[in-house]
Amino acid sequence: MVCHVGFTTEAQPFVIPTLYARVGDALYFHGSAASRMLRGVATGLSVCITVTLTDGLVLARSVFNHSMNYRSVVALGRATLVAEQAEKMEALRAFTEKILPGRWEDARQPNDKELKATSILKLALTEASAKVRSGPVQDDEEDYTLPVWAGIVPLHLQAEAPIRDERCDAAIPTPKYAANYRRP
Amino acid sequence: MVCHVGFTTEAQPFVIPTLYARVGDALYFHGSAASRMLRGVATGLSVCITVTLTDGLVLARSVFNHSMNYRSVVALGRATLVAEQAEKMEALRAFTEKILPGRWEDARQPNDKELKATSILKLALTEASAKVRSGPVQDDEEDYTLPVWAGIVPLHLQAEAPIRDERCDAAIPTPKYAANYRRP
Repeated sequence: MVCHVGFTTEAQPFVIPTLYARVGDALYFHGSAASRMLRGVATGLSVCITVTLTDGLVLARSVFNHSMNYRSVVALGRATLVAEQAEKMEALRAFTEKILPGRWEDARQPNDKELKATSILKLALTEASAKVRSGPVQDDEEDYTLPVWAGIVPLHLQAEAPIRDERCDAAIPTPKYAANYRRP
Repeated sequence: MVCHVGFTTEAQPFVIPTLYARVGDALYFHGSAASRMLRGVATGLSVCITVTLTDGLVLARSVFNHSMNYRSVVALGRATLVAEQAEKMEALRAFTEKILPGRWEDARQPNDKELKATSILKLALTEASAKVRSGPVQDDEEDYTLPVWAGIVPLHLQAEAPIRDERCDAAIPTPKYAANYRRP
């Protein structure tokens, strides 16, 4: 849902969380969160975009072999600012539909003024790598006899019951994407 | 639970997820994930450490005002490699106890060989900032009459029932920190 964008200005790295979506072979991400980032981007800003999902705690018998089950992706390259309004609109649609499929058609879509006020950056997916840790505990052979509980505590991002806005007419039904929200 | 560490080598920023813990006015984080990072750290490596918690989806009546409720912290500075074994041990204890209070005493603690094989980095907390978005939807005044459902979908990291390791003796009770795991 959230990526972490890394970039450097004046020898200082910054890492900023923001929304993103993949469209074809490109990642689009919100630039409004980082004005520092936007100053560098006209000339092509070197970025690293990392997405991490935490799937579980790995409780080994030894502290040393404790770990996490996770999936992460790192994408590298030069980001550019999306100038064309139609491409911006497509990126906003992708952000929305990725997180809440169906929401784009339900909500009021962006007008020209809002579109102009939105900064979207694009990174072509030319260099990317994935790391995954999954499955059971791996202990050193001599540790298996220790009287220590070992196993996995699975983790997932859980949605709670939606909270209707105070000014939302009770006659408007709660859409399925909010009532039964699940991360894929 | 996981932080994202940003650093730059040869003009390319990298963002790597890793475990961390705060001890007093310093952050400790695992360096083993990033060998690139370790090459630069002897001379004091400029880093940015970002931690983000996603608390909810904010469904406004307009796409433009959609947002997320979140808490994030960004810490900047120069990281150094922890050389002293006692300080390394303290950092490992902090990683473990932060995520699983009580686990340090239950599990086999690191021996000298494991301690030597572990790279821990330290960032003094001298420059840090926090960003928080919480509370209800904020729509443009003219949008409140639209027949669009609006509200918050709260999110939290949820633990499922622990999965005992196949080689873990059934007579060893599941510890509370695993059976009733909850993120603070």
